[in-house]
Amino acid sequence: MANALESLKDRLFDVNALNVAAVIMDWDQQTYMPKQGSDARAEHMSILSRMAHEMFVADDTQRWTESAQPTSEDDEALIRIVKRQLLLKTKLPSRLVEEKMKASVLGHEAWVNARANNDFNAFAPVLEKLFDLSREEAECYGYSDDIYTALLDIYEEGATAGEVRTMFDAIKGPQVELVKAIAAQGPVDDSFLHGEWDTAAQQKLTLHYVKAIGFDLERGRQDTAPHPFCTTFSVNDVRLTTRFKPYLPSSIFGSLHEAGHGLYEQGSPKAWDRTPLAGGVSLGVHESQSRLWENLVGRSRAFWEWGYGDLQNAFPALKDHSLDKFLKAVNRVQPSFIRVEADELTYNLHIIIRFEIESAVLKGELAVKDIPDAWNAKYEEYLGITPKTDSEGCLQDVHWSMGSIGYFPTYTMGNLLSYQIWAAMQADLGDLDALIAVGDFAPILNWLQTKIYRQGSKFPPKELIASVTGKPMGAEDYLAGLGAKYRNLYGI
Amino acid sequence: MANALESLKDRLFDVNALNVAAVIMDWDQQTYMPKQGSDARAEHMSILSRMAHEMFVADDTQRWTESAQPTSEDDEALIRIVKRQLLLKTKLPSRLVEEKMKASVLGHEAWVNARANNDFNAFAPVLEKLFDLSREEAECYGYSDDIYTALLDIYEEGATAGEVRTMFDAIKGPQVELVKAIAAQGPVDDSFLHGEWDTAAQQKLTLHYVKAIGFDLERGRQDTAPHPFCTTFSVNDVRLTTRFKPYLPSSIFGSLHEAGHGLYEQGSPKAWDRTPLAGGVSLGVHESQSRLWENLVGRSRAFWEWGYGDLQNAFPALKDHSLDKFLKAVNRVQPSFIRVEADELTYNLHIIIRFEIESAVLKGELAVKDIPDAWNAKYEEYLGITPKTDSEGCLQDVHWSMGSIGYFPTYTMGNLLSYQIWAAMQADLGDLDALIAVGDFAPILNWLQTKIYRQGSKFPPKELIASVTGKPMGAEDYLAGLGAKYRNLYGI
Repeated sequence: MANALESLKDRLFDVNALNVAAVIMDWDQQTYMPKQGSDARAEHMSILSRMAHEMFVADDTQRWTESAQPTSEDDEALIRIVKRQLLLKTKLPSRLVEEKMKASVLGHEAWVNARANNDFNAFAPVLEKLFDLSREEAECYGYSDDIYTALLDIYEEGATAGEVRTMFDAIKGPQVELVKAIAAQGPVDDSFLHGEWDTAAQQKLTLHYVKAIGFDLERGRQDTAPHPFCTTFSVNDVRLTTRFKPYLPSSIFGSLHEAGHGLYEQGSPKAWDRTPLAGGVSLGVHESQSRLWENLVGRSRAFWEWGYGDLQNAFPALKDHSLDKFLKAVNRVQPSFIRVEADELTYNLHIIIRFEIESAVLKGELAVKDIPDAWNAKYEEYLGITPKTDSEGCLQDVHWSMGSIGYFPTYTMGNLLSYQIWAAMQADLGDLDALIAVGDFAPILNWLQTKIYRQGSKFPPKELIASVTGKPMGAEDYLAGLGAKYRNLYGI
Repeated sequence: MANALESLKDRLFDVNALNVAAVIMDWDQQTYMPKQGSDARAEHMSILSRMAHEMFVADDTQRWTESAQPTSEDDEALIRIVKRQLLLKTKLPSRLVEEKMKASVLGHEAWVNARANNDFNAFAPVLEKLFDLSREEAECYGYSDDIYTALLDIYEEGATAGEVRTMFDAIKGPQVELVKAIAAQGPVDDSFLHGEWDTAAQQKLTLHYVKAIGFDLERGRQDTAPHPFCTTFSVNDVRLTTRFKPYLPSSIFGSLHEAGHGLYEQGSPKAWDRTPLAGGVSLGVHESQSRLWENLVGRSRAFWEWGYGDLQNAFPALKDHSLDKFLKAVNRVQPSFIRVEADELTYNLHIIIRFEIESAVLKGELAVKDIPDAWNAKYEEYLGITPKTDSEGCLQDVHWSMGSIGYFPTYTMGNLLSYQIWAAMQADLGDLDALIAVGDFAPILNWLQTKIYRQGSKFPPKELIASVTGKPMGAEDYLAGLGAKYRNLYGI
């Protein structure tokens, strides 16, 4: 009789090859594919994804998973992960899966047009359908306390709506207050960072920073794409993308953000390559690493004490602007309408709004047709601004149109965790700024590698966080760190 | 009962997706993949290739192919092609397939080392094994006249060893004579084309030429790779690569050559995309198109009457050199040891030598250990030069080490066919040089598209050639064209 564990592993390698093929096709589409390649590309990717799905949920995969006899901790973890994935992929009736896929395709199309035409009503019926299907999906997965938990868990294993509420309750007040205190200081001038910047010089410079913090360019690369992202072909082949806008910080912090994801992906043990053990464990923990390198490292005074000279040499116009001025500009806090352009501080307010609306609609407390009013009222309440159009309001994000409901809170989790992990690292390593200020990123990377990256997906996120930081996710370190940073920066 | 033809087509789409996935991975490996990505890449590609093979030769594919009821000419052709491919892939016992794969892997390794160390003896045992396996393979496929035919047919449907012999007999004498007559004129100076040339300017210029002849950059692109190649992801996504060496013509004619392949691939009807009907029909016909655009268009006086100004503007050093001088230099004929660097004229002499040796070894008339002596003797006889080492002699090509025996003659077929097709086009369109000299390539491309590209793989190569040129492949047009060209160029 064949060894079930070995059969399972072979199956997982096959599924991985199919998934990676689709991932490479997607990367190529974002980076190099000629314009007219998209029709065939869509067909190819949909065939490969179908094959991967069918092969993964096949009867024998399930049988092998049930009967596999793990003899090591790693194998135990592997089987646990596969069981969870099987559950997520098999608990939904195929009718629901199909309806969801169709609604997502229609939803995405409708959203693109609705946003272009500022016409929420055109999007509302399909959004209502998407919420209905998500509700049905949540019922299939089941939940004890809150319907939102069932959806959130897809993206963040073990997280609950109650925890999210506690998190937002803890940060909402202090964040809104801090934003107001900063606004009272008057606007920060960052006009000198706007304008056209040489693309080749930005490419060179972002690669320089990304390499300096430890991203291995023999095991990865950075290309240009309309939206920055990080994607993994294997532990030794991790791809970043960046983009160049008429605002210099965009490519720099975008690159550091994606490199943070990339460092996490490159850090998995080679022995786990091409298995579900490799790679980051959850969206929230992954985001903690992109935010840590982007914000706690990249937006620190120490980083620019080390790196501002290189930037000024690449862009001599900056020689007229002091480090202080630059630092304040890249940490400018300014309530704005668009989430993806928001600063570190106001970002979470955008997320809270989305969570509160998602949750209310799921529970039937808010009708889809009333989303625009609720959205605008909340922007006024939390950020003190009111979107002039739904396009810059509730139509701005792609997520709902693709049926990704329950996803947003993981962004804020990432922000909180980045500060919590940073505090734990500081307790271990002492003065991190002193290291950063001389470009000595290795101790930081090594600490993260040992504690987090090398663990891949082996432990559930909550277990990992507890072991790394000695406590469950909370808001204290985040509020303390953020408060200190901005009070210092703005002299409040 | 499901429609067998529809089931077959769905299966073919699935197989295509798997094959294209491996092709994209290969392209990425040659162009962008970071250094250390190769281990996982090899695993991924081998898994996808195995899946594609298993899925293609599966019992149901065979059953559907047998019972499919074609209702159109296109479907009839499709089934004919699939039947042939199934035969090629199922006639070999799996033991032989496995042995061949193993011997190829070992062979390639052994060849790399043997070539590096100039040590044919280290390669001989595995080469002997590869010839043994090819002999066995040929017996499985069967043949009536000549064992070589069975292997050649894999690459060029319907071609026979007898035809190859006739072809070589016809050209050997005149070619050797012409080469000697040219040599008697003394050496041509092409030193002004050697040296370092700006890569960005070459990239821009090769793209300009490639676009000018009609390669559609909305349905394809050109990247840089160690070896130039053309590969197809779909009818609307055809990828070329080029390379930059310290010899300017290398990128220019390499790009035109690959663009010739690319034009052929881009020319298939969109309706056949992702099916075996799309794409070039055989290696020989494919090579006829790369050679036609590279040599008959690209190396013509007319082409440079149109294009030399752009070249001189991109590389002002060329302004010191006349069109005549440039033209003679890029058509320099010079016996040399390395096939891939050979000029248009001596190229076929390299091929004849390989064919004669392959054929003799297959038939037991030449022992593998005696290949170096036979090789060197033939280089002396046909080219008047003797390799100083086996590394620049019989160890130079990768083909045998991968078990590709019977492949080489398709290169010469391509050369012959390029002139034969050109003659037919000239009979239809009149003065082609007059078109080329003003950069009006559209009539040429349209003619080729109508007659050849739009036919994809629908007709067997011999049928296609007869319909396009009104006769079977022969040497007359080739010898006449080549003779006129070089006699004119050298004033013989």
